[in-house]
Amino acid sequence: MDTRPIGIFDSGVGGLTVAKQVIKAIPNEDTIYFGDTARVPYGTKSKETVTEFSRQIMRFLISKNVKAVVIACNTVSSNSYHELRAEFDIPIIEVVGPGVESCLEITKTNRVGIIGTSATIASGAYEKRLKAARPGIRVFQKPCPLFVSLAEEGFTENDIAKLTVKTYLTELKEKNIDSLILGCTHYPMLKKTIGEFMGESVKIVDPAVETAHKMKDCLRENNMTGNETEGKHIFYCSDDCGQFNLICKANLGIDYPVHKESAEKY
Amino acid sequence: MDTRPIGIFDSGVGGLTVAKQVIKAIPNEDTIYFGDTARVPYGTKSKETVTEFSRQIMRFLISKNVKAVVIACNTVSSNSYHELRAEFDIPIIEVVGPGVESCLEITKTNRVGIIGTSATIASGAYEKRLKAARPGIRVFQKPCPLFVSLAEEGFTENDIAKLTVKTYLTELKEKNIDSLILGCTHYPMLKKTIGEFMGESVKIVDPAVETAHKMKDCLRENNMTGNETEGKHIFYCSDDCGQFNLICKANLGIDYPVHKESAEKY
Repeated sequence: MDTRPIGIFDSGVGGLTVAKQVIKAIPNEDTIYFGDTARVPYGTKSKETVTEFSRQIMRFLISKNVKAVVIACNTVSSNSYHELRAEFDIPIIEVVGPGVESCLEITKTNRVGIIGTSATIASGAYEKRLKAARPGIRVFQKPCPLFVSLAEEGFTENDIAKLTVKTYLTELKEKNIDSLILGCTHYPMLKKTIGEFMGESVKIVDPAVETAHKMKDCLRENNMTGNETEGKHIFYCSDDCGQFNLICKANLGIDYPVHKESAEKY
Repeated sequence: MDTRPIGIFDSGVGGLTVAKQVIKAIPNEDTIYFGDTARVPYGTKSKETVTEFSRQIMRFLISKNVKAVVIACNTVSSNSYHELRAEFDIPIIEVVGPGVESCLEITKTNRVGIIGTSATIASGAYEKRLKAARPGIRVFQKPCPLFVSLAEEGFTENDIAKLTVKTYLTELKEKNIDSLILGCTHYPMLKKTIGEFMGESVKIVDPAVETAHKMKDCLRENNMTGNETEGKHIFYCSDDCGQFNLICKANLGIDYPVHKESAEKY
């Protein structure tokens, strides 16, 4: 039995959608979440900067004695996973692989779409892995940088959200895809508006659920399963805790303690 | 004669609109610009975080031997100016004062509007200074957090920009203001769309020009005027230089050298 906590991190609050699924899938494990709200967003920044910020957060989580880490951020998963895995000697689960696997199970026509931040789309991570797993697949991509700001502003179903969804996704809709990967942890907040625009023939793939199951399997395989009682959950963010606390409560339904911590010194 | 450079800083590229005016107003002075593109934006973050980031940048600029500093960012000017002035022993010019002075000269009805980031509006800096200078003035404020993302995405005149302007500014328009302060250095990029929505009766106030003149006066008063030949201009940013270089060239019309520097270590 390994009672050490699982680390989960994201550039900000988006990864809470993943944390929620992790807590649901393995409720007996302790978790420590870090959201880098002082430096959010990552998706408009360079691979080098994203990797350096992620490295600092990994060091912080390891200082908290985590046994494994979930990268709950598509930008980090797409740009920095290989570097982090090479540098840190603990199991790391990211979100791109699970998203790819879900999509491959769902698609019938092998015409799939991917939306994400500029950094995620520029990395080509989803496309490469889909094509490696199924060479004949047709992949259509579109960066949607404004979706993160819309989600953070709470503009998820109003006219601005609908017009922005239409502006970004019209060209994907015309490609007759049958599944669409939400390649950014903020995007599930716009799921309803995206789904209504794309229509019922397009299945929306949110990698969070599959990612949580991947961590469950990982703990089993490494003989790392933990507590038999209910897990404890601690949240850290690098900017003001009040706003984070509100969003955390709205997403997870529980008023967890939130602490402020800067990753820069790690 | 004091040939040391002037420091100018912003959370990212928005302050280039101010740098342009400074270079125009005092073309013989050398300048050093720092844009914190790795941690942009500041306007959605807490006063404490904004002040700490600004402190690091001040230390960086001072390490480069600057004689005075322009805070080319409304969020920093509104939230951190007094702290910085108390901590650093060189002249510091910020953007709120010049914006207030311009507005007071322009308004005839004493009904004025202010738009800015959430942090700038929450600080109340513009409102306090307007009311201190002219007690009877009526001030109407509105945070427009999405404008920064729109400007960075290049959505400045399309339907999304128009709808967002309408959504944020309808309540200000109904207040019958006769002048509107653009309290964020990104917002001049949306000036045309904002101006068209507000109508000809509303004068748009951009504090950049007045800020540059303030620095010119400051150098004279402190016997700090510099070179008699054309000034040199160096730019630093904390994320990828390529993107910054493109925007810098688009704003200033010259292909200045851009160097990468992290403020965190200062």
